[in-house]
Amino acid sequence: MADAGALDALVQALRILPGVGIKSAQRMAFHLLQRDRAGAGQLALALQTAATSVRHCERCHTFTEAPVCATCLDPARDRARLCVVETPADQAAMERTGAYAGLYFVLMGRLSPLDGVGPKEIGLTQLIERACDGQVQEVILATGFTAEGEATAHAISEALKRRGLHVTRLARGVPVGSELEYVDLGTIAHALVDRR
Amino acid sequence: MADAGALDALVQALRILPGVGIKSAQRMAFHLLQRDRAGAGQLALALQTAATSVRHCERCHTFTEAPVCATCLDPARDRARLCVVETPADQAAMERTGAYAGLYFVLMGRLSPLDGVGPKEIGLTQLIERACDGQVQEVILATGFTAEGEATAHAISEALKRRGLHVTRLARGVPVGSELEYVDLGTIAHALVDRR
Ligand SMILES: [Zn+2]
Ligand SMILES: [Zn+2]
Repeated sequence: MADAGALDALVQALRILPGVGIKSAQRMAFHLLQRDRAGAGQLALALQTAATSVRHCERCHTFTEAPVCATCLDPARDRARLCVVETPADQAAMERTGAYAGLYFVLMGRLSPLDGVGPKEIGLTQLIERACDGQVQEVILATGFTAEGEATAHAISEALKRRGLHVTRLARGVPVGSELEYVDLGTIAHALVDRR
Repeated sequence: MADAGALDALVQALRILPGVGIKSAQRMAFHLLQRDRAGAGQLALALQTAATSVRHCERCHTFTEAPVCATCLDPARDRARLCVVETPADQAAMERTGAYAGLYFVLMGRLSPLDGVGPKEIGLTQLIERACDGQVQEVILATGFTAEGEATAHAISEALKRRGLHVTRLARGVPVGSELEYVDLGTIAHALVDRR
């Protein structure tokens, strides 16, 4: 694409984005440089700001700019229930159902040995510690109903039951093979009520 | 997605990229912050560098960091032939055929009145000036064989023929309805030989 080193560097840099191949990266670079240089500047700033200021909540591991996130600090939430989700997007989907008022633990991933994601990467030790705070009476496993999500739920369930905790799983109302964040709200709400 | 203003700002900023909706933007932000902060920093830098250093070649309008691009300056290129393409990606496709040794004019778009892209936006005046340099003997129109690409070729052809220039069009070997950059090289090479 032309003889611009800076342009080639941009195309290569865009390819680090998930789902973006060479053709998409070229289109993105063309669009930004030809039609939206202001947008390119905004994106650069947003990337830098987020990369330096976004950290993980000390209690639930979700993204936050404070040591502890607003949800964990909210005194109105039910501290007896802890819902384990894979990502902040899954947490947001749970929140949108309006059917859950407890707290969360966000794994920021799911067990995937082939990708090098093990118990340490999903914070299993911290989850056990968090669930054993004496206030949590039920841990609701809301990982995805994919093979990896199920394996993750199974591993967490075993670890927590060994410590005498009451562990439930979202009901199978959630279509098998799907990611939680794409499921319609009614199905999630139903699965929450029918948790086993 | 969590309570991080910087994270929301990043998700919004990613949506300026063509083809990226809210779900893709959330996935990209999650991937960058959870798995590739170094990549996020590199992308930010590449965006800034490209947005400030990439300009348009004074002669052919393609992206370059110098006043005139390397192709336009190459003494080995045939200065009697000028190929008009829509984008740098289309120019790169022409180059990969190895069947063309002339120069280029890159419209950086195509006529699209509904999107506010008129003769001025594609540099029609500069193209006419460029084609009338006294050295160009043939202008080869290699805009896409889409409705907009054909309309663009027609408008340019009319303007150049009025000035006595010899104008040709890639042969219809190129499948109708397709973008040039996705066409296989052999078809492009064949269409170049059969230009009419
Ligand atoms: Zn938290
Ligand atoms: Zn040039």
